[in-house]
Amino acid sequence: MTTFLGTGAMGSALAGATLSNRRNVRVWNRNPDRTAPLADRGAQVLPKIEPPTDGPLVACLFDHLSVHESLDPIADDLRGHVLINLTTTTPGQARELAAWAARHGIAYLDGAIMAVPEMIGGPGAVVLYSGRAEVFEQHRDLLQLWGEARYFGADAGLASLYDLAMLSGMYQMFAGFLHGAAMVADAQVPAVEFAQLQAPFLATMTQGLADYAQTVDARDYTAPGQQSLRFTETALAALEQASGEAGVGTQTLHPVRRLVRNQIESGHGEHGTARIYEEFRSRR
Amino acid sequence: MTTFLGTGAMGSALAGATLSNRRNVRVWNRNPDRTAPLADRGAQVLPKIEPPTDGPLVACLFDHLSVHESLDPIADDLRGHVLINLTTTTPGQARELAAWAARHGIAYLDGAIMAVPEMIGGPGAVVLYSGRAEVFEQHRDLLQLWGEARYFGADAGLASLYDLAMLSGMYQMFAGFLHGAAMVADAQVPAVEFAQLQAPFLATMTQGLADYAQTVDARDYTAPGQQSLRFTETALAALEQASGEAGVGTQTLHPVRRLVRNQIESGHGEHGTARIYEEFRSRR
Ligand SMILES: NC(=O)c1ccc[n+]([C@@H]2O[C@H](COP(=O)([O-])OP(=O)(O)OC[C@H]3O[C@@H](n4cnc5c(N)ncnc54)[C@H](OP(=O)(O)O)[C@@H]3O)[C@@H](O)[C@H]2O)c1
Ligand SMILES: NC(=O)c1ccc[n+]([C@@H]2O[C@H](COP(=O)([O-])OP(=O)(O)OC[C@H]3O[C@@H](n4cnc5c(N)ncnc54)[C@H](OP(=O)(O)O)[C@@H]3O)[C@@H](O)[C@H]2O)c1
Repeated sequence: MTTFLGTGAMGSALAGATLSNRRNVRVWNRNPDRTAPLADRGAQVLPKIEPPTDGPLVACLFDHLSVHESLDPIADDLRGHVLINLTTTTPGQARELAAWAARHGIAYLDGAIMAVPEMIGGPGAVVLYSGRAEVFEQHRDLLQLWGEARYFGADAGLASLYDLAMLSGMYQMFAGFLHGAAMVADAQVPAVEFAQLQAPFLATMTQGLADYAQTVDARDYTAPGQQSLRFTETALAALEQASGEAGVGTQTLHPVRRLVRNQIESGHGEHGTARIYEEFRSRR
Repeated sequence: MTTFLGTGAMGSALAGATLSNRRNVRVWNRNPDRTAPLADRGAQVLPKIEPPTDGPLVACLFDHLSVHESLDPIADDLRGHVLINLTTTTPGQARELAAWAARHGIAYLDGAIMAVPEMIGGPGAVVLYSGRAEVFEQHRDLLQLWGEARYFGADAGLASLYDLAMLSGMYQMFAGFLHGAAMVADAQVPAVEFAQLQAPFLATMTQGLADYAQTVDARDYTAPGQQSLRFTETALAALEQASGEAGVGTQTLHPVRRLVRNQIESGHGEHGTARIYEEFRSRR
């Protein structure tokens, strides 16, 4: 028996994929109307949150605060139970929840879902986990109903840290793409035409990340054959100039160039461009 | 016979791929020492730039200025000849060179190389062209020795515009990746481990660019099913908070969030996130 707390878009997808695999499911939602489609499919609806008779509690609520609002009142009754929390939180919030769970004798596993609801239970869905290893091991079959399940370690903040870190590349790539689309629009090129070249180009360029990563782990940017900061500065200068010619704002591009220039001004112009990593870490 | 001006890393790769296909090659370089490896392979070395007896001139010099410095002195002798310029320029500079060429009766094709020298002549190398269509058609066999040759249109600035627009996504993706790598480093996760997840994730995410492009072309961000600006703001807020917790700078991420917030403040919170495109175009 698995008890799902929260039957919003994502909670419903998780509970639905579980039902599809002929498992017993109980669901609770603050607004009970939202449980109806799952009830039609055989889920038992709980009028209020209560400790499960057996099996884990799976929370997929709005945010960190809503998890506390929902579970604080019954925390003491959850001693000895398993809580798998798939609500999006920051790493710090996940660690806070893990400490809260530990205080109440709850075995806590944190998850970060790298998929939209439609992808749950299908190929391509990945869910990252961290926290109590034995919870991950014991419930692996359940977790794999939702997507590829990856475990990162005992620090409950790791899954969320990884998840958010992955999104940084995604959002900045999206911004860069839209900037590029705005540039070609100046020459009446439709964005769909641009995307046809840009998408495979960027996909190919992701193959270079492994090299960048090695360089960054060594924190040695002197190996030959890397694209130098000075070369990158020339390219970014041309890119900014072309953006200006096309009337396109460089609000997100210029800060990248500033990192490059900072490192050049610190005397590293001939070093590899991965060195801008040091700019991100300089605040530590 | 093809005459190459500039035998730096890239010019040498272009001339080398041409020699490999048993074509006659003449080369000129400001510093003649750099022509020696090509001479050994059968290229004829020119002591000074002169109009070709037949075939096109292919320039691959440092920048726009070096093209003028090299060709201005013999511009009048080039009337009736073909100039294929693969030197990196901005779109404006390419258009200036096209106008200069037109004034001197030179048929001008501009090219932008989307490859490093090692890739020239191999799979994966792409070169974008724009300018005189008949030059592209007539010399297509030659151009295809270097990589996949794509023609964009008569406006000589298009190849460069496209090229630079493609780099915007790449550099911003790289910055986002390095930001993410700095975040996980706070939990002692090596960047190489992070890259193993990040690279395929970003490659998958490039499949979403086609949808963004369609939305952007329509400039209508109201269709259902899009990730709303408000949702993205929540994700970016978590990402910034997690960055702060990990001591990682948000110099490049924060400006992306600012675009999102600007659009929300303009009352578009429920619109699709592709709407940040309007922020890039708002300077026009
Ligand atoms: N959708 C996605 O693509 C996606 C992807 C990855 C991760 N996630 C994460 O999954 C979680 C759920 O997202 P969703 O898409 O399912 O959102 P949603 O459709 O808006 O559902 C939100 C759920 O949270 C509940 N809730 C909100 N505030 C609450 C409170 N104070 N106390 C108790 N319950 C509360 C809602 O209950 P009511 O129905 O009573 O309002 C609803 O069940 C979020 O953390 C989200 O970041 C979503
Ligand atoms: N390398 C790449 O990965 C790559 C990729 C795409 C595009 N490109 C573009 O290809 C072009 C050449 O790059 P490269 O990698 O071959 O650079 P490079 O190895 O530095 O070669 C530069 C070439 O330009 C010549 N040059 C410089 N200033 C000159 C001047 N004032 N007058 C005449 N010749 C001059 C150099 O001659 P000397 O030997 O006499 O200095 C040399 O032949 C650049 O526009 C670059 O942006 C390169």
